[in-house]
Amino acid sequence: MTTDFLTWSTALQTQMEAVLSHHLPSADIAPNTLHQAMRYAVLEGGKRVRPLLAFAAGAVTQADPARVAIVAAAVELIHAYSLVHDDMPAMDNDILRRGKPTCHVAFGEATALLVGDSLQTLAFDLLASHKLNNDAIQQLQMIKLLTHATGSRGMAGGQAIDLASVGVELSLPELEFMHIHKTGALIRASVLLGAHCGQPLDTQQMTQLDHYAKCIGLAFQVVDDILDASTSTATLGKTAGKDAAANKPTYVSLMGMSDAQALAASLHQDALTAIDKFEHNQRLRELADFIVQRSY
Amino acid sequence: MTTDFLTWSTALQTQMEAVLSHHLPSADIAPNTLHQAMRYAVLEGGKRVRPLLAFAAGAVTQADPARVAIVAAAVELIHAYSLVHDDMPAMDNDILRRGKPTCHVAFGEATALLVGDSLQTLAFDLLASHKLNNDAIQQLQMIKLLTHATGSRGMAGGQAIDLASVGVELSLPELEFMHIHKTGALIRASVLLGAHCGQPLDTQQMTQLDHYAKCIGLAFQVVDDILDASTSTATLGKTAGKDAAANKPTYVSLMGMSDAQALAASLHQDALTAIDKFEHNQRLRELADFIVQRSY
Repeated sequence: MTTDFLTWSTALQTQMEAVLSHHLPSADIAPNTLHQAMRYAVLEGGKRVRPLLAFAAGAVTQADPARVAIVAAAVELIHAYSLVHDDMPAMDNDILRRGKPTCHVAFGEATALLVGDSLQTLAFDLLASHKLNNDAIQQLQMIKLLTHATGSRGMAGGQAIDLASVGVELSLPELEFMHIHKTGALIRASVLLGAHCGQPLDTQQMTQLDHYAKCIGLAFQVVDDILDASTSTATLGKTAGKDAAANKPTYVSLMGMSDAQALAASLHQDALTAIDKFEHNQRLRELADFIVQRSY
Repeated sequence: MTTDFLTWSTALQTQMEAVLSHHLPSADIAPNTLHQAMRYAVLEGGKRVRPLLAFAAGAVTQADPARVAIVAAAVELIHAYSLVHDDMPAMDNDILRRGKPTCHVAFGEATALLVGDSLQTLAFDLLASHKLNNDAIQQLQMIKLLTHATGSRGMAGGQAIDLASVGVELSLPELEFMHIHKTGALIRASVLLGAHCGQPLDTQQMTQLDHYAKCIGLAFQVVDDILDASTSTATLGKTAGKDAAANKPTYVSLMGMSDAQALAASLHQDALTAIDKFEHNQRLRELADFIVQRSY
């Protein structure tokens, strides 16, 4: 007998809060303000979608949840670092995140810069400091996987493409290329790293899991664009409509609302098909549903 | 028969340029501007002191130079990332570095932010992607060592303490605490990582090597302060006198020039004494001499 999705995800969100709090330096440790700001940027916020994906994939490979908790924390720290830097005035210049003032508004730009830098470092610290795989060579490969998802050919590269796209007519393939990097790479890493904590999958299974992750990553972004165009700032906990205001291309602006909704539905179906044959795929299925059907 | 220091260091500086160029993404790869800016921030610049220290320590443990080159590149990438972020307007707001416009002046603040972020990621990518130790568990420890030197309790923490010290009366122990983090941690990591590429040292030897690295790290900063107060911008290749102008405490402002020079000499002697018993210590000795006697 398994618990329902809401019970499962709520319990993991609570657990992640404790894991992240444990591994973030205490605000009592010098430099105090930096550590306080790091905690502010990470704790009490977010849906923890990437950690949930890591746990859902870890369930497929019957991974030790204590190991999955570490990779889940690492991907969430990378995500949090990217939000802190992306919100800064030189980038998106946003003042509201997860219903709170953004890190640079609360602590100043210099500290926010160091917060992002230090959260990235802490993510790799976690992956190097805990046993995550019985084979240490495999664990090195897991670290490499996260660096590729994070760096200039992954998430940070996607942000660079995004910056260069403001006010530019993008084609749909160009928009997809941007999102595959900006958000897709880390979502994919979350799924794969969760799976790597457990029993090895064969090549075909790994390809299917990766395809699930790619579809979910794109669907996540399409739904983000739909919500951004149709939902209030209060519900989102971040500034709504800002992409349109910044003249940034979105799935809704390029395809229209109806086609964007159809694309999300199609990606949802592809994701479910990719993992159809897996045992213990319940949480991956539920997360695909959640990501497409969420309202915030 | 061994080559003299100048021949040795010049050859390694040339080699490091090639190694860094090889591992930095080509400017032909998308996102092109980000990759061009990453190359700008790292190549054709700097004394490569940290790589030289890694090679000098690697000589003590008879490490494979190809392995040392990777850790040397990793520490140099971390150093380069920190310079790019530290030079930004939110931090030191500097316009000149290694005789060229700083990264944000040449490429804009948003790109500079992503350059620093991506250089940090690339450093950990290198350490995870190459065999650096016959024992993969030891290699994970090496990655952990670099994260500790880099993060909020290392270099980034030192930068936070530095920011908080502008216009504040620091005592000498407080100034030392700042520098042990801001520059000392990465210099220490450079030495230890170079050594870890080779034959294991016993605990006492590792402690001595670490003491050498701590002394050299502090001596490096004391000499930086002396040069900053006494040398022209043209010679330094970065803005001279900026610490005094920014009302930042330095060894010279706290102790006076004469006592600062005596401190550098004393740290130099302590560093030499720490490695006195080591075989193959020639390059470590020469680097200690260079760091204290340099004029730029």
